[in-house]
Amino acid sequence: MTTGKINVSVENIFPLIKKFLYSDHEIFLRELVSNATDATLKLKHLTSIGEAKVEYGNPIIEVKIDKEGKKLHIIDQGLGMTAEEVEKYINQIAFSGAEEFLEKYKDSAKDSGVIGHFGLGFYSAFMVASKVEIITKSYKDEPAAHWSCDGSPEFTLEPHDKTDRGTEIILHIAEDSLEFLEEYRIRELLTKYNKFMPVPIKFGTKKEALPKPEDAPEDYKTEYVDVDNIINNPTPAWTKQPSDLKEDDYKDFYRELYPMQFEEPLFNIHLNVDYPFNLTGILYFPKLDANLQVQKDKIQLYQNQVFVTDNVEGIVPEFLVMLRGVIDSPDIPLNVSRSYLQADGNVKKISNYITRKVADKLKSLFNENRQDFESKWNDIKIVLEYGMLSEPKFYEKAGDFVLYPSVDGKYYTLAELKEAISANQTDKNGKLVVLYASNKDAQHGYIEIAKEKGYEVLLLDSPIVSHLIQKLESDNENLTFVRVDSDHIDKLIQKEDTQISKLSEEETTKLKTVLEEIVPKTNYSVQLEPMDSTAAPFIITQPEFMRRMKEMSQTGGGMFGMGNFPEMYNLVVNTNSDLATTILTTEDKSVQESLVKQALDLAKISQGLLKGEELTAFVKRSFELIK
Amino acid sequence: MTTGKINVSVENIFPLIKKFLYSDHEIFLRELVSNATDATLKLKHLTSIGEAKVEYGNPIIEVKIDKEGKKLHIIDQGLGMTAEEVEKYINQIAFSGAEEFLEKYKDSAKDSGVIGHFGLGFYSAFMVASKVEIITKSYKDEPAAHWSCDGSPEFTLEPHDKTDRGTEIILHIAEDSLEFLEEYRIRELLTKYNKFMPVPIKFGTKKEALPKPEDAPEDYKTEYVDVDNIINNPTPAWTKQPSDLKEDDYKDFYRELYPMQFEEPLFNIHLNVDYPFNLTGILYFPKLDANLQVQKDKIQLYQNQVFVTDNVEGIVPEFLVMLRGVIDSPDIPLNVSRSYLQADGNVKKISNYITRKVADKLKSLFNENRQDFESKWNDIKIVLEYGMLSEPKFYEKAGDFVLYPSVDGKYYTLAELKEAISANQTDKNGKLVVLYASNKDAQHGYIEIAKEKGYEVLLLDSPIVSHLIQKLESDNENLTFVRVDSDHIDKLIQKEDTQISKLSEEETTKLKTVLEEIVPKTNYSVQLEPMDSTAAPFIITQPEFMRRMKEMSQTGGGMFGMGNFPEMYNLVVNTNSDLATTILTTEDKSVQESLVKQALDLAKISQGLLKGEELTAFVKRSFELIK
Repeated sequence: MTTGKINVSVENIFPLIKKFLYSDHEIFLRELVSNATDATLKLKHLTSIGEAKVEYGNPIIEVKIDKEGKKLHIIDQGLGMTAEEVEKYINQIAFSGAEEFLEKYKDSAKDSGVIGHFGLGFYSAFMVASKVEIITKSYKDEPAAHWSCDGSPEFTLEPHDKTDRGTEIILHIAEDSLEFLEEYRIRELLTKYNKFMPVPIKFGTKKEALPKPEDAPEDYKTEYVDVDNIINNPTPAWTKQPSDLKEDDYKDFYRELYPMQFEEPLFNIHLNVDYPFNLTGILYFPKLDANLQVQKDKIQLYQNQVFVTDNVEGIVPEFLVMLRGVIDSPDIPLNVSRSYLQADGNVKKISNYITRKVADKLKSLFNENRQDFESKWNDIKIVLEYGMLSEPKFYEKAGDFVLYPSVDGKYYTLAELKEAISANQTDKNGKLVVLYASNKDAQHGYIEIAKEKGYEVLLLDSPIVSHLIQKLESDNENLTFVRVDSDHIDKLIQKEDTQISKLSEEETTKLKTVLEEIVPKTNYSVQLEPMDSTAAPFIITQPEFMRRMKEMSQTGGGMFGMGNFPEMYNLVVNTNSDLATTILTTEDKSVQESLVKQALDLAKISQGLLKGEELTAFVKRSFELIK
Repeated sequence: MTTGKINVSVENIFPLIKKFLYSDHEIFLRELVSNATDATLKLKHLTSIGEAKVEYGNPIIEVKIDKEGKKLHIIDQGLGMTAEEVEKYINQIAFSGAEEFLEKYKDSAKDSGVIGHFGLGFYSAFMVASKVEIITKSYKDEPAAHWSCDGSPEFTLEPHDKTDRGTEIILHIAEDSLEFLEEYRIRELLTKYNKFMPVPIKFGTKKEALPKPEDAPEDYKTEYVDVDNIINNPTPAWTKQPSDLKEDDYKDFYRELYPMQFEEPLFNIHLNVDYPFNLTGILYFPKLDANLQVQKDKIQLYQNQVFVTDNVEGIVPEFLVMLRGVIDSPDIPLNVSRSYLQADGNVKKISNYITRKVADKLKSLFNENRQDFESKWNDIKIVLEYGMLSEPKFYEKAGDFVLYPSVDGKYYTLAELKEAISANQTDKNGKLVVLYASNKDAQHGYIEIAKEKGYEVLLLDSPIVSHLIQKLESDNENLTFVRVDSDHIDKLIQKEDTQISKLSEEETTKLKTVLEEIVPKTNYSVQLEPMDSTAAPFIITQPEFMRRMKEMSQTGGGMFGMGNFPEMYNLVVNTNSDLATTILTTEDKSVQESLVKQALDLAKISQGLLKGEELTAFVKRSFELIK
């Protein structure tokens, strides 16, 4: 038996690193600026604990394009490296100096913000550069070193006369990556990945106006000077304590995150947890656009203030992906897939924590200023209703703040609603019947009739509401929801009292026969009902169950195939109406028919069912009537 | 100056490979089955050129779960390895045997189908296994070898008594990956990644009925035997020549790809190109579901019959992503990002090729059987219209097959349409006016009026049609599109002849004053027109330009902010109608007002604008009239 050690040769692995280390080549800049940040934060830590006896000062990182020389420079004023350290940290692929640093100073450096992990980041430079140089001067009293490598695994290392502390990385940009010599491109990358990193990053200069002197003449012209153009905000709002932030600070940060958003957010939720995982962040409920699909401004995920991605699927509960804002956590495994995320216990805990925080915030907003909460309901309802359907933990808490608005703009919690309607809307079987409309305009006639009876009518118009009421019914005994147009008023909520019919049984049968000869059977089943004589003579209703199942099926769910069922309606004819009597007693068949047809047309108009040729004919006929 | 070589140690890189080689851990099975396939195809190649003097036979690959032993076996009957080859290929991370093989046999092996590339695939086993064993017997006359490694970089290698040719990989599944010992999970992975790989893959056995013997007794019971359960189809349709496939073969393959799809595809496009890149595949135009959003069955991307992804963004032109089917190419860089794909010249060429092939196929379908093509138009129009808007190359070719249907089901190409309507629909300024409707029902009355004039009315009801007609207008001089309800009939297409008004100028002014006192100014501007006396007395029109801009803005594009403009309408009153005279001559102000209101309501009903309270009141009033 032989034993041995698996081997890896740099000649084999180096080309792979260059090609496949990161699928996005642009990542190199994020990695190099992160390294520069780490070098700076490490120095800060070492000076703070007295290990480095130098002045920390106000170090910045500079990114500089040398277009003619085809070079990109990343310069920091951090702790630098001695020649010996270059040998140790740079010449060894995948040897992480950051890990070693954190290990060595584990007690004191926990919160130092050091980013590095795998010791691979530096090599991403070779994805875009044909040659890479490092000129570095350690904070220790040793000469500077100059390392250089042309992408083959061969390097050179020699002394350098650099005297100021820190590291300069020089990338000789490769011919296929010349885009990274364009100012706009580098600015774009710095803005995307480094906008909130903790060390100031300088990219070029900008003009700044000098203050106007006291004794300025009338024709004084403002003078400008060149100042460093710092592209980042090193202390973004989410890194601060909630107690140090005012409402306006949150709004300012929202505009900083989304400069193209003109609408203000509805409210924010500051996340801040240390245990069992580290997570900070600020989430915003935006005002919803008409166009839900096109959602460009997403929640951004950061790791120690470095932008990672705006794909937070799996980390943020699905119902909250329409929110905006920032999440920052060193504990989220970043380079792994969604399927892995879903299985990861830590990630599940984060998702649960966010759900809980959002529910708590909603509850306190509701309690603190109910009127304001109600005014925002329309913008947040879809998110909350979807949360109730998809997150059991959220559903449990939703009773405290989820609202059910009436068509007249009154807002109930479910408990309040039950209380308010129990006296008048309990049917003869003891069921509490909630009436609702999905569209105030389209169902106006039906709503009016219900309101005349003193019934409360809710306005439930979210696209997923059929799923929600299905769930509410199954979780609340003796609670049932029916849309106002699903039956005629006496049947919507059945009470003990029955209406007496003006027509005899024989007359009723005769009327039914007449009607069924004229009304098309395929879509309408005729139903004769003794109702209040002043009620509409003809109305069209659509039974709740079938309609709801169809709606559920159309928005995903419900019974398979129901979405394709034909629409079925009832034509309810009020036998106590004058029109019913008129139809019954009209001898002239053609007059009778045109009476029924006109009445059916009017009932259809009430339900938005008169269309096309029928509508054109109706309008023409009606114009004839009035001319 | 020192020089030296960058170093990489296996202790550093191995943990990274285990954790980050692939973001999806499940990929390990795809990689190992691909290796087994390569080993088999290499042997096939070597026997075919006489380099290996053994019988190739009918080799299969077997995947076997040993749940008790917590092991997963992948067994092939390929060329195997000698102990020396194990040392060379396995113990060296990122040393690719496949690359070496292709290099060595580059003339003959070009089409051998060998998959491997980077020599990393095997190591993906360590993502899920705590220990990996290889038992392998080369086709060469040498003893079998047994390699074993527990995930540390240490390995052992010893002889083994295996006598049959090929390689067996044994994974000792790690505690955090026990899901990969579940039959359903392995079947899922094999089906996802290996369903069309070129060597048969056995996973378990299945029962197969024995044929009924000739002399079977009456009470014969079917007997079953266990046979290998082969989970893949080694020769999927796209690997065959189009000339060898019938229409039904394409349909069968569609069902094989999408077993849950009940609808048949409309038609297919077989892709097959060698130069300047390699690409095969079959694309299908599906029947569109009502719900465009939920699109689970996407185009699948394969590399040498190994499934890679169903995210083909960038490779397939955007307007074709709703298609279904398969694309297989060894030339698409697979592990790179979308932004890289967009910049890659090869990928751009592939996308252009697909666009051209689709356009060519559509043209030939149109030419071969126009009637059939017309019958499918409704299902394909959105894809094609979007293609015209987004791909200039497709737009150029679209004139040959893109159709413009009339409300009566007649289909024109643009050229045919111009020809057909030029005599009757050229206005007095020489502009050719195309009339269209977006909804046959909602605009029925307006359509009828246009048809009475002998005008052709198109039915253009795609959501993006406003963008398309905007483009057609700008590319076709003297062509203009107006919706049938955008003006009254005499103005839609202005001819030389003018109608004479029954009313004097004074009467017209008086009528206008009366109307403007009653009709609400905020939404309607009153417009008096002398029209045919039999035309509708009141109609509501909505000018084309504003409406189209609003629509464009709502579907992304058009002028900024137009989507939020209020709807503006014209109330056109026919001064030659009897009703106009009646209104003018009615002395009783309240009768006059109710006449105007009823007429306005009827005009609103024609445009679907009478809603809510107004509609309820209208219906109630109308019931009163007939009772």
